[in-house]
Amino acid sequence: MKIGFIGIGVMGHWMAAHLLAAGNEAYVYNRTKVKAKQIVEQGAVWCDTPQAVAENADVVFSIVGYPQDVKEIYYGENGIFTADVKDKILVDMTTSTPSLAEQIAQTAKQKGAESLDAPVSGGDLGAKNATLTIMVGGSQEAYEKVMPLFKVMGKSYVLHGGPGKGQHTKMANQIMIAGTMTGMTEMLVYAKAAGLNLEKVIETVGGGGGANWSLANYAPRILKEDYTPGFFVKHFIKDLKIALAEAEKMAIDLPATKEATRLYELLAQKGYENDGTQALIKLWWGN
Amino acid sequence: MKIGFIGIGVMGHWMAAHLLAAGNEAYVYNRTKVKAKQIVEQGAVWCDTPQAVAENADVVFSIVGYPQDVKEIYYGENGIFTADVKDKILVDMTTSTPSLAEQIAQTAKQKGAESLDAPVSGGDLGAKNATLTIMVGGSQEAYEKVMPLFKVMGKSYVLHGGPGKGQHTKMANQIMIAGTMTGMTEMLVYAKAAGLNLEKVIETVGGGGGANWSLANYAPRILKEDYTPGFFVKHFIKDLKIALAEAEKMAIDLPATKEATRLYELLAQKGYENDGTQALIKLWWGN
Repeated sequence: MKIGFIGIGVMGHWMAAHLLAAGNEAYVYNRTKVKAKQIVEQGAVWCDTPQAVAENADVVFSIVGYPQDVKEIYYGENGIFTADVKDKILVDMTTSTPSLAEQIAQTAKQKGAESLDAPVSGGDLGAKNATLTIMVGGSQEAYEKVMPLFKVMGKSYVLHGGPGKGQHTKMANQIMIAGTMTGMTEMLVYAKAAGLNLEKVIETVGGGGGANWSLANYAPRILKEDYTPGFFVKHFIKDLKIALAEAEKMAIDLPATKEATRLYELLAQKGYENDGTQALIKLWWGN
Repeated sequence: MKIGFIGIGVMGHWMAAHLLAAGNEAYVYNRTKVKAKQIVEQGAVWCDTPQAVAENADVVFSIVGYPQDVKEIYYGENGIFTADVKDKILVDMTTSTPSLAEQIAQTAKQKGAESLDAPVSGGDLGAKNATLTIMVGGSQEAYEKVMPLFKVMGKSYVLHGGPGKGQHTKMANQIMIAGTMTGMTEMLVYAKAAGLNLEKVIETVGGGGGANWSLANYAPRILKEDYTPGFFVKHFIKDLKIALAEAEKMAIDLPATKEATRLYELLAQKGYENDGTQALIKLWWGN
């Protein structure tokens, strides 16, 4: 199949590489061209604009940074929608706003194309190992057509409803993680202040009703002072702010998520926005 | 061995029954005598006061409601410390304050006895199935003597340090759970408002970086509107308030735990203090 891939970054590089390795023809674009060098050497065709990608490919994937970047690659001067996208499927995998996903779906429909919002979780390792969780919104029909390609990139790829529902599911996921991250961090802060052996506490708490992925994966890294990003603080803030904005639109209050967002924004203000999310502990243990 | 057991409640009944079934002689006391009827029929010896329990037993366990109840059974008129406790081991398994555990350890020492603080997690099911997690503070020597009895009641029983460290570990555990409970609750609130299929979302979120025990165990109960207590709201509030008071003593701020406590107190004010902790969602979905 002729696939397009826009956004050859920490995640996109691996995702595109898997699609290429699975025997697809790949047309790629990235804002910073040099990052696509390796994938082009592996056989992908470089395109100078998102428009060119969309002209060449039948299914166009994108995974970029922020909602405004998504808007740019879709609606910008040389964006996807300046191409003839009739009968094509446009799949944005960026974590972005549900409303933008709905808007893209509407434009796509007007142009005779289909679209899916399909944000992922699992980070760079998930992308590398093709074990991403892919949360999909859109039509059943488009989902089924793209499924074989999702399968190449992820271990889980579930359709959660119409346009925007993939993004909403990702927001739900981030709200959950806001709880495990703040809980895990304050747990360690308390345990250290109380003079406990942190390895033992992590094992005990992780063996019962407090068990969670953040504790199992990030707490040991914190003890090793390893703050390299599995997931960037700045991206987590982006996600949480989208979640809170959506919650406000839906007239629901999420106080714990708000508090988590406030703490992460404080962390970013202190200069840690390019650390991994486990760096939250630096609000207490920072120097 | 001659064991004493004070507090024959939802947890204590099973714990005492396991100790009895393991071949120990058991002396029991409960504030409400009728609750001890069954264990006495099974062969335990009823005592009219904590003092009488302490006179008869070599190792005295207790698991009661609040720190003031612990104070009462230890320092009250017919309390444990009015007995001759020389060479005995006093094991309080109530979730209580680290400072009270330290005070008991000091009094015990003065009287030639030893003490352990050994709060548990795992709830009534853990007590029934002898799969409790027991978090122990006290001397290595006393811990080793009591270990065979802990083994009868729990699947994990770790010494976390000197007097009070068992309680501190339990507080760390509750701080972690405050995060998973608020995160899980707000996640469901968001997902429902966004019109998502909650079963699918729970499966997707629980299959990745958001995975946690509360989500796996409580979220499905919430969907069935099952708010029966695995763990009471009122007891969780007690624990969180102890944790926050200790944090304040140690001059550390735990904003997310504070927010969780505020939400649970609001829930109790609305009349749900005897529900299980999963009832937090009633702040949004309540009628």
